[in-house]
Amino acid sequence: MTKLKILVIEGTARPKRRSIHAAKLIEKIGKDIEGIEITLVCPEDFNLPFDGNDDENKDPKYTKLTADADAFFIVTPEYNHGYPGTLKRLLDSELKNYIHKPVAFAGVSDGLWGGVRAIEGLVDCVREMGMVATFTDVQFPRIQDLFDEKGNLLDEKYIKRIERTYTELIWMAKALKHGRENFESKYHEPK
Amino acid sequence: MTKLKILVIEGTARPKRRSIHAAKLIEKIGKDIEGIEITLVCPEDFNLPFDGNDDENKDPKYTKLTADADAFFIVTPEYNHGYPGTLKRLLDSELKNYIHKPVAFAGVSDGLWGGVRAIEGLVDCVREMGMVATFTDVQFPRIQDLFDEKGNLLDEKYIKRIERTYTELIWMAKALKHGRENFESKYHEPK
Amino acid sequence: MTKLKILVIEGTARPKRRSIHAAKLIEKIGKDIEGIEITLVCPEDFNLPFDGNDDENKDPKYTKLTADADAFFIVTPEYNHGYPGTLKRLLDSELKNYIHKPVAFAGVSDGLWGGVRAIEGLVDCVREMGMVATFTDVQFPRIQDLFDEKGNLLDEKYIKRIERTYTELIWMAKALKHGRENFESKYHEPK
Amino acid sequence: MTKLKILVIEGTARPKRRSIHAAKLIEKIGKDIEGIEITLVCPEDFNLPFDGNDDENKDPKYTKLTADADAFFIVTPEYNHGYPGTLKRLLDSELKNYIHKPVAFAGVSDGLWGGVRAIEGLVDCVREMGMVATFTDVQFPRIQDLFDEKGNLLDEKYIKRIERTYTELIWMAKALKHGRENFESKYHEPK
Repeated sequence: MTKLKILVIEGTARPKRRSIHAAKLIEKIGKDIEGIEITLVCPEDFNLPFDGNDDENKDPKYTKLTADADAFFIVTPEYNHGYPGTLKRLLDSELKNYIHKPVAFAGVSDGLWGGVRAIEGLVDCVREMGMVATFTDVQFPRIQDLFDEKGNLLDEKYIKRIERTYTELIWMAKALKHGRENFESKYHEPK
Repeated sequence: MTKLKILVIEGTARPKRRSIHAAKLIEKIGKDIEGIEITLVCPEDFNLPFDGNDDENKDPKYTKLTADADAFFIVTPEYNHGYPGTLKRLLDSELKNYIHKPVAFAGVSDGLWGGVRAIEGLVDCVREMGMVATFTDVQFPRIQDLFDEKGNLLDEKYIKRIERTYTELIWMAKALKHGRENFESKYHEPK
Repeated sequence: MTKLKILVIEGTARPKRRSIHAAKLIEKIGKDIEGIEITLVCPEDFNLPFDGNDDENKDPKYTKLTADADAFFIVTPEYNHGYPGTLKRLLDSELKNYIHKPVAFAGVSDGLWGGVRAIEGLVDCVREMGMVATFTDVQFPRIQDLFDEKGNLLDEKYIKRIERTYTELIWMAKALKHGRENFESKYHEPK
Repeated sequence: MTKLKILVIEGTARPKRRSIHAAKLIEKIGKDIEGIEITLVCPEDFNLPFDGNDDENKDPKYTKLTADADAFFIVTPEYNHGYPGTLKRLLDSELKNYIHKPVAFAGVSDGLWGGVRAIEGLVDCVREMGMVATFTDVQFPRIQDLFDEKGNLLDEKYIKRIERTYTELIWMAKALKHGRENFESKYHEPK
C-alpha cells in the first residue's frame, strides 16, 4: 500500500527559533511510524516575498510538496496571541492543494500556555483552505525547558504525546484519502 | 444503502428569532435530497438549565439524537460578534457523540455580515468536540429582507447555496462514516 | 473622591463549578484595595431565559448594576475551547451600559491551559459591546489543585497576580472615566 | 494643544493590493480633521525579514514611528479568514510602543464580508500588545467596486463612515493620552 505523505511545516524562520527542535522531534518520531513518509520544511526553504497566492508569490517547490501531501503537521510558535506572519505567508501562497486533507498542530511558547492561542487562530484559517483540523494537539509550553541547546528532548513524555497526535492525523488522512479516491467532488479529480 | 442522518440545529430560542426561517428552509431543502434524512431541533426542545455535560445538564433526547446523527448543520445567529449562549449550552451538553462527524454552518444576522463571526467562533469549539467543520457556509445577512413574516423565502438564490453546502457536508459525512466503520480508533467501536 | 465600582461576574451557574472559588477570591482581594467598590454577581441571580437583549430577556437588576459599574472583572470557565453559554447570555442581555468601560479577565480550567481560549473568544465579543479589554489576565489552570473543597486558596502566588490585574483594570477605569466625564461622545451623556 | 499623532498602517505589500486605496483614502480624510496628524506607512517601507522582535528583526524607523504615535489605524486585507502575514510581522516587531494606545480597524476583501474575520483575529493580538481596540470598524467588501483603478472612491458613503471611525479613535486617544500623562503605570514613564 502507498505510504501516506505527511508534510511537517516549521512555522517561523526566526534565527533564534526553538520551535525547530519540536519540528525535528516530530519529524524523527514520524519517520519511525509505519505507513507514512515524512518531509520537514522550513519557511526559509521557499521564496515568498509577499502575501497571497498571486503568481509573484508562489514557489513551485511548495506547490509540488502540497500537491503530493496527504496530510500536514504544522508546528507554530505563538507571537502576541497569534500565529507567525511567516507561517501565514507560507500557507496563504497555495490555494487548492489543501482541500480535503487533514492537519495536526503543535503549539510552542516560551510562556506557560503552549501556543494554544496561535493554534486557535490557525484553525479558522485552515478550515477556509479546505483542510480538516484534527483535535489532538501537542503543546510545548516553556520550550526552553523541554529541549537542550542542541535540540535533545528533556521530557520523554512528549514521545507518546506526539505519537497520539500522529495516530489521529493518520486516521483522518486515511478517511479523507478514501473520500478523495472514491467520492466525487468538484474540488478534485476522480481517480 | 442506509440514509445519512443529518441533525439541523437551530441556534437560539429567542422568541423573535428569524433564524428559524433559515433553519426550516435548510430542513425543507434537505428533505428533497436523496440519501439523507433530516431532523430539525430547536434549543427549547431540551431541558438544559446549566453549562457543561454533568449529569444534571444532559437531556437524553439530545444524547440519542447526536448518537444517531452522521452529520450536523448548525444555524447560528450572531450576537455581539459571538455565538448565542443557548446554542453553546446545547452543544456543550454532549461530549462523545460528535467525534469524527462533520458539521456545516449557516450564519444569520440583521446586519450586513451574515453571522460570519459567530461561525468563526464556533469552528474552534466544534473542533475540540471532535467534529470536522466543512468550509462551504451559507450566510444570511439582513435576514429580515430574505424571508417574509411567514418565513417564505424572498431570494431564490439561497436554494442553490444551501444545496451546495449539503453537497460538501454529505461528501464529508460519507468519508468519515467510511472511516468510522473501517478504521480503528479509540473514539468509537469498530463495526 | 468617588470610588470606582467594579462588577465581578462569575461565568457559569453550573452546580459543580469551581470557578466560583476564583470569583470569590477576586471579590475578597478587591475589597481590600482602596478606592474601589466590589460587587460579585452570579448568572443565577438573574432571570434571562433567552438570548439577546429584547425586553423579554432583560433583567432590570442586571441593567442597573451595569449602568452603575465603572469596570468589569469577568471570571470565565472554558468549555470546549469557548466561553460558557450562560455567561454569553448574561453579557448579551445588555447593550448600552458597557460602552467605554474596561474589563479584566480571569480564565479557569480543569486542564493545563487556564481558560485562555475562552478569554480569547470573549475579547472579540466585549469589544463589540464597547468595552475595553485589558491585557493582564489571571489564569487558573487545574483549579482543582488551586483551591480546597471549601474554596480556600492553596497557592498564595495568586494574590499578587490578582492584584496586578486590578492595578491595570483600575488604571484603565480611571482613564476611561475621565474620558466619559470630559470628552463628548454620542455614546454617553456629558456631565 | 499638541496634535494627536495617528499612524495609518497598510496591511500588505502585495503588488496587486487594492487595500492601498482604502489606506490612502483614510490618510486623506484624516488630514482634513483638526487636531490630528497622519502618517501612512506600508510594510515595504521597513526591513523585517523574520518574525518576532529580536534585534535582527527590528527596524528603527518603525520603532520611532510607533514610539511617537498616539493612536493607530490598521487597514487589513483578509486572506483565508485571517490577517496577512506581512502585517503580523510588522506588528510583532515592536513590543512596548503600543501600550495604552488605541487602534481602529478597516477591513478589506474582494468578497462580500469586508475583511471582518481578519479584524476579529487582530483584535486578540493587539490586546496582547497592550493596545485598546475601538469598536467602530470600516469594512470595504468587494473593494474592486468601491475604487476605480486609479484609486478614486466610487461610493461617497465611505467618507462619513471613515469620519465616524476617526471620531471614536480620537475619543479613545484623548482618554488614554490623559491616562498616560496623569496616572502612574509600570508601562510608561510619568510626564
